[in-house]
Amino acid sequence: MQRFEDLAKKFAAHFNNRHFPEQPSTLYDADEYFLGIGGKRIRPVLCLMGNEMFDEILPDAYHVATAIELFHNFTLIHDDIMDNAPLRRNMPTVHEKYGSSTALLAGDVMLVVAYDHLLKIKPDYLKKIATLFSRTAREVCEGQQLDMDFEKRSQVGMDEYIQMIQLKTSVLVAASLQMGGLLGGAGERNLQHLYEFGRNLGIAFQIQDDYLDAFGDPAKFGKQVGGDIVANKKTFLLIKALESADPVRLKALNALLESNPADKVPQVLELFRDLKVDQWAFNLKDHYLNEAYRHLEEIAVLKVRKEPLMELAQFLVQREY
Amino acid sequence: MQRFEDLAKKFAAHFNNRHFPEQPSTLYDADEYFLGIGGKRIRPVLCLMGNEMFDEILPDAYHVATAIELFHNFTLIHDDIMDNAPLRRNMPTVHEKYGSSTALLAGDVMLVVAYDHLLKIKPDYLKKIATLFSRTAREVCEGQQLDMDFEKRSQVGMDEYIQMIQLKTSVLVAASLQMGGLLGGAGERNLQHLYEFGRNLGIAFQIQDDYLDAFGDPAKFGKQVGGDIVANKKTFLLIKALESADPVRLKALNALLESNPADKVPQVLELFRDLKVDQWAFNLKDHYLNEAYRHLEEIAVLKVRKEPLMELAQFLVQREY
Repeated sequence: MQRFEDLAKKFAAHFNNRHFPEQPSTLYDADEYFLGIGGKRIRPVLCLMGNEMFDEILPDAYHVATAIELFHNFTLIHDDIMDNAPLRRNMPTVHEKYGSSTALLAGDVMLVVAYDHLLKIKPDYLKKIATLFSRTAREVCEGQQLDMDFEKRSQVGMDEYIQMIQLKTSVLVAASLQMGGLLGGAGERNLQHLYEFGRNLGIAFQIQDDYLDAFGDPAKFGKQVGGDIVANKKTFLLIKALESADPVRLKALNALLESNPADKVPQVLELFRDLKVDQWAFNLKDHYLNEAYRHLEEIAVLKVRKEPLMELAQFLVQREY
Repeated sequence: MQRFEDLAKKFAAHFNNRHFPEQPSTLYDADEYFLGIGGKRIRPVLCLMGNEMFDEILPDAYHVATAIELFHNFTLIHDDIMDNAPLRRNMPTVHEKYGSSTALLAGDVMLVVAYDHLLKIKPDYLKKIATLFSRTAREVCEGQQLDMDFEKRSQVGMDEYIQMIQLKTSVLVAASLQMGGLLGGAGERNLQHLYEFGRNLGIAFQIQDDYLDAFGDPAKFGKQVGGDIVANKKTFLLIKALESADPVRLKALNALLESNPADKVPQVLELFRDLKVDQWAFNLKDHYLNEAYRHLEEIAVLKVRKEPLMELAQFLVQREY
């Protein structure tokens, strides 16, 4: 059983090559640029790990993992256009560097090439894996749409927010693992538990993301802490704070959201702490992590085969960056 | 052998249903809206015709045809964003009606659903057809990028323009036919001729498009005649005029392109006529149509099986709208 770091190195050796033709360079340079700025490659490695839990890693797993990573990057390029984001991983976004029309097309063609890789795998499991891939792709689009819808609304319930996060983030984590499981020949029940492990882990991961954006250590986080607060972004923390605040604090919070004062971030953080939203988020993350572990335990393979995923899960929800 | 009109009716009966889930309606209403404004459905019907040239139409041909039509609509939604076009088929474009972020996502998810339909077909030919589909999709993206690149350049050669048109328009016409041929069990040589028929027909089709935009009858054309001229769009006509004009007329033409006077359209049209660009376009279209026919003739099936395609080709390059 290989650990995340080992498989990440193997995946990088496979993936860190040119993916697109040279010409037209006005299109494909944008794609190569974006792939070149890197990323943690969590999702494709989850696919390899899902495979190895049940059997030796098949050569086809690298095709599926590549398709997953290209799909993920396609969503990032297009999300950055929609969010009008200037930076990604501290580098200019594709639309900033190449214009939004080229960014749009660079994303489109990356999705097509993702399918190309998927189509390379053996017919035995092509249909099952590609159907899961496509369902997941649709769900990720739905999640992004809901995220944009929520930004325009003043009130968003916790349940709807979690549903949105599942679509936007969790299902791809879950499906990456399950596609690996399918390649490894896992049975129906094991596949279901693997998916649920990923789905719950994805939610815990997002809670940690929201938490770090507010309470992270600026020296470690690598992004501006409080960015979500500045943007009034709906997060686990803000939604919980709005739901649980007494009338006085609710008024104060809403005033901060509307007036955008210079000291908005420390003031909102103080309210979050007063309302114990930080502790609540910590507990909620633990809840989803435990749910994830519960499903991991149910998978009918030797415990030693689960250890790399257990370790990775712990890392992902405890990371400080 | 069924004619285009008959197969178009059969395809419509299959296609004119809801394609997307109800929720989130903020995303899927945009997709349903765009499919609802119609279209000639030429490409999917070409797929059915390519199939029927060799054998009875398979049920899978409808899945492939649906994938083709959804792919085509995905490109239109995204092209309209890039071109900032307010109208398509005399109706507001998706980004005009739903905003550009939703239009972007509505296009993305339409491409995913196109692949979903493709993945429904029998494994026997899934890989061949999906590989052709993906290659074509990449080429269409490349064509759109080149089209945008050319708009920024003052000079574009006829050869590069034709290469761009092939990618942006012809390859999907050619591939639609060839996918049909693959479903019908056609052999390698027949498939090649079918593709070349489509490729040449696609170029002739685009010449007719450019011609109608300039010299069409406003009562029949249904769009503003001269729209390409107003926008200084590179077309077969403009590129030929710039290539063939004597110094005096070249100066006059360039002055019109730069100054955009109120009577630009009639003045440019007069220059086009002086330079016999209209007659040249007519001859060029004939050249590509004859090339198309030459390949159609080479296909080793009874002549009667080719008649519907022959008739359609004639219609497409002689249409006045």
